[in-house]
Amino acid sequence: MEWQRRIRAIPDWPRPGVVFRDITPLLQDAAAFAASVEALAAAVRPWRPTHVVGIEARGFIFGAALASALRLGFVPVRKKGKLPAATVEEEYALEYGSDRIAMHVDGLGPDMRPVLIDDLLATGGTAAACDRLARKVGAELAGAAFVIELAALAGRRALRADLPVATLMTL
Amino acid sequence: MEWQRRIRAIPDWPRPGVVFRDITPLLQDAAAFAASVEALAAAVRPWRPTHVVGIEARGFIFGAALASALRLGFVPVRKKGKLPAATVEEEYALEYGSDRIAMHVDGLGPDMRPVLIDDLLATGGTAAACDRLARKVGAELAGAAFVIELAALAGRRALRADLPVATLMTL
Repeated sequence: MEWQRRIRAIPDWPRPGVVFRDITPLLQDAAAFAASVEALAAAVRPWRPTHVVGIEARGFIFGAALASALRLGFVPVRKKGKLPAATVEEEYALEYGSDRIAMHVDGLGPDMRPVLIDDLLATGGTAAACDRLARKVGAELAGAAFVIELAALAGRRALRADLPVATLMTL
Repeated sequence: MEWQRRIRAIPDWPRPGVVFRDITPLLQDAAAFAASVEALAAAVRPWRPTHVVGIEARGFIFGAALASALRLGFVPVRKKGKLPAATVEEEYALEYGSDRIAMHVDGLGPDMRPVLIDDLLATGGTAAACDRLARKVGAELAGAAFVIELAALAGRRALRADLPVATLMTL
């Protein structure tokens, strides 16, 4: 079962010159989705996680599936203004300008070993911001795992050097 | 294990007079999250689903966890403009005005038995729009399940009368 083949390339999306990696055919295929979640589970298990942190919106899909598979708690990181209780926020760079992501202040704590899950490691900006969010509330990420790594964007260099990182496929 | 106790009420959010039901304490608690996903699984299993349709963004969390637990494919419904391939769209009413949700045209097909999952059945507007999206591509929802039903908003009445509906708790 090569679940990686279920990721399709969409040329010129969201803008000319960009090839978007569309995970929806993978998600739609039960065996492929299960295989990708099992691969994430195998990657993060050595980190002995207690919680999964998922980044809105595609990170919710893999993160919640992984949390369910490993019977862990799930902590959402959302765009600012979407979470209803008290939050901490961090800024991350966009191609032009910046945006902010937020997590509930009681989302994580010092006694937890959260792992960060997202579908894509591109520039690493949002992942690095999540790492800072965790530290703001006294937690430390035990690792970060991504389904796809875009090697040309060197996202690993945006992350702190001692953060364990796993990616399931490199494009 | 009363997982329902892990849902907290946030008064005056997102605006004065509204009590928001915050599921993040439930998600954060591994046993509570697992229990809620198991309850969803028990609710939808009689419908013999082949796929789970989840609505952005909180519906991704429960939908993907359920798809993983039942080893089903997952089909995302997103706000318009977020999905990269060809889509079908449907409009749904907001308090003031309307918005549109989208699904890939190849997200579902006639041979599938999709179930719709979302965290909340409020007015039923987005769920009814999802039902129409499925029909637009030749599929028919086998049912719709929600973690929370806000009875006062009578969301069931917005859904077609012959759609099986399950809710795990009513507020």
